[in-house]
Amino acid sequence: MKIYKGHLLFTPERTGFEVIENGYVAVENGRIVGVASQLADLDIADGELVEFGDRLVIPAMCDMHVHAPQYRNQGMSMDHELLTWLSTYTFPEEAKFADTAYAERIYRRFVRDLWRYGTMRAAVFATIHGESTRLLMRLFHEAGMGALVGKVDMDRNCPDALCETVDEAVTANESLIAEFSDPDGLVRPIITPRFIPSCTPPMLEACGRLAREHGLAVQSHLSENRDEIALVRELEPTSTCYGDAYNRYGLFGQTPTLMAHCVYSPDEEIELMRRNGVMAVHCPTSNLNIASGMSPVRTLLDRGVRVALGSDISGGHDLNMFRIMVYTLQVSKLASVVQGVKPQLTLPEAFWCATKSAGSFFGRVGSFEPGYEFDALVIDDSGLNFDHYTLLERLERFIYLGDDRHIAHRYCRGMEIPEPKAD
Amino acid sequence: MKIYKGHLLFTPERTGFEVIENGYVAVENGRIVGVASQLADLDIADGELVEFGDRLVIPAMCDMHVHAPQYRNQGMSMDHELLTWLSTYTFPEEAKFADTAYAERIYRRFVRDLWRYGTMRAAVFATIHGESTRLLMRLFHEAGMGALVGKVDMDRNCPDALCETVDEAVTANESLIAEFSDPDGLVRPIITPRFIPSCTPPMLEACGRLAREHGLAVQSHLSENRDEIALVRELEPTSTCYGDAYNRYGLFGQTPTLMAHCVYSPDEEIELMRRNGVMAVHCPTSNLNIASGMSPVRTLLDRGVRVALGSDISGGHDLNMFRIMVYTLQVSKLASVVQGVKPQLTLPEAFWCATKSAGSFFGRVGSFEPGYEFDALVIDDSGLNFDHYTLLERLERFIYLGDDRHIAHRYCRGMEIPEPKAD
Repeated sequence: MKIYKGHLLFTPERTGFEVIENGYVAVENGRIVGVASQLADLDIADGELVEFGDRLVIPAMCDMHVHAPQYRNQGMSMDHELLTWLSTYTFPEEAKFADTAYAERIYRRFVRDLWRYGTMRAAVFATIHGESTRLLMRLFHEAGMGALVGKVDMDRNCPDALCETVDEAVTANESLIAEFSDPDGLVRPIITPRFIPSCTPPMLEACGRLAREHGLAVQSHLSENRDEIALVRELEPTSTCYGDAYNRYGLFGQTPTLMAHCVYSPDEEIELMRRNGVMAVHCPTSNLNIASGMSPVRTLLDRGVRVALGSDISGGHDLNMFRIMVYTLQVSKLASVVQGVKPQLTLPEAFWCATKSAGSFFGRVGSFEPGYEFDALVIDDSGLNFDHYTLLERLERFIYLGDDRHIAHRYCRGMEIPEPKAD
Repeated sequence: MKIYKGHLLFTPERTGFEVIENGYVAVENGRIVGVASQLADLDIADGELVEFGDRLVIPAMCDMHVHAPQYRNQGMSMDHELLTWLSTYTFPEEAKFADTAYAERIYRRFVRDLWRYGTMRAAVFATIHGESTRLLMRLFHEAGMGALVGKVDMDRNCPDALCETVDEAVTANESLIAEFSDPDGLVRPIITPRFIPSCTPPMLEACGRLAREHGLAVQSHLSENRDEIALVRELEPTSTCYGDAYNRYGLFGQTPTLMAHCVYSPDEEIELMRRNGVMAVHCPTSNLNIASGMSPVRTLLDRGVRVALGSDISGGHDLNMFRIMVYTLQVSKLASVVQGVKPQLTLPEAFWCATKSAGSFFGRVGSFEPGYEFDALVIDDSGLNFDHYTLLERLERFIYLGDDRHIAHRYCRGMEIPEPKAD
């Protein structure tokens, strides 16, 4: 049993922060067994007290959409829209991951940098390559960080080097599923058809079957860009919307499902997401950088769709989920002015999306309530706190102005996570 | 004479970067006397060679719209639109600057942090208070950094503590003008009527007269927000547009003029800006944070309006002008998708706005061409350059991913600028 003491800030509901000044959180076997503003109220016989003094203690970040093999391309070649950007920059880079030595160099740096920015759980796209995907999963496992890692499946509209047969895809997935078979493991496979334009009907059927048979989650892309949606309409002419196409293959909530972007989801698609419990992953930096548009997050939330946030490296340029929160608020404000989507999102809502809402995909993660896994960051904002700010102002300023230098400790499932080796 | 050697990247035109790998730039009396890819081509008898090795050398940043007294409020209370935000957060904070001890503490930190992010020239709003404005000017002077600093003038629609008479405003301005009278000084006064809603006609007349009589530049706000524009229409019913109201008082290009925002400038206003040489200052983070909208920068450029960039602390949350460039590109991409303002801006255009275009307001500043003042940053991007990136990719990655840790040296007018003391 450990008892952590500090200023606790978290979002049990999306309507606002719970703030416990000089509070206590008791953790046993990785899970929170009590939270209180007075030690006596914890009603715990004994435990090792860990003092964080004047620091802020907040839930760790969840990045629910990120492409690990695009890490080399982060922050470059941002002058193209989705489909040309994929063919010119992204696919050639992903092809390099046939080489596990290259993969190791990039993936080690990727995992280390997720750690730096306080992201303790992630839903990750790898490439089609089984062996480099296995390597990435082992790196997360070694680091002690939580990750759903997808070997990407694709067999059309892609360069030869990234094309595979359905059998190859199934075999590679099954090998990873066998190695990472513990349902409670921090690192788990996730079935990852790249998106409808890259997958033939037999590939989509196989993906749906793998998910169902192994009880595995699914992740893919949805309604990101108008050209992409038009292409899906051509490829799946009998589907009533893009989401319906996934749904027909058992890839839309039949098992827990993440769908990135949802910028142009029509009403019918939103309703299908709600009904099937599909989680939308909002990636505002990517939507700006590759000129996709503004996802109507307020509308998704109002209609009862689950929403998380993603960095979407390398369409997005920034791994720092706190900046993704800022962009989430900014895009929401712009959507309120330009498109009349009101009211604008609030800071606790953006924070909740990146913690408790996203964390629900992993079980009980992303909040400081009894029964939740203890995923936490300890924030030393002393450099920013020079004039008697309130605790909420300190948190807001850290979110807007802070960076990795302000994160003093990182916990995942109750364990303090040291810096993973990158070089 | 000094000769600096490194990879030189700058924008003589907005259409693209000039890249000189392992180039040389010779500097005498603060100005560039030669730039070449070979030492012999400089045709210079002798000079001290300063080697920057594999580092990037770029023009220093110009921040053309920033409110120094709002520095305490940076990154907080971002849930309000312009007019309520001013009355609730901004004015009460500015009122504190009657106290020069408080002002010194905040202003020292502000100047130090501009330095950190490589901003060597700035156009700054202070408050109505002459003495704390003087202090800010002295701090810039001590630091060796370039700044146009405006004592803010305002006499209506503001709390009593921030209201002054026209005579008080004129007297305070004249005292600062007398102290900072060298027309070649790095620190100069700039006439700063806050904006039309805060200034009565006699105040605006007095501001126009001060600018004309002393040959001083002018800065203010223009067409930021729809409510603000409606208010100006009420207050100045005979003016044909917001810009025309300034123009009637001699505050719209009669002397060099900066106008921040220009989000909703109608055609007539844009034409008046072009004709009068008024420089628009685009502040994308502020326009997002306080839900103003998207400034059509492409349209301004196409119509021949001069454009610079501003952090607009504390409507904006970030002093880092490289991030302001990123936001400039992102807003332009969104405007192209949502409003059809095409083509989207390019990276060299955003860079040019923050360097050569902005720098033209100070004379010959913001480029590495003969005759330009040597304002430069030396970028050590070795932490980002892990996989054989080209020089342009390295610059783009620094702009998107870098921070103050990557800025190794800062020069203003040929002098290396050490870190200003903040505490």
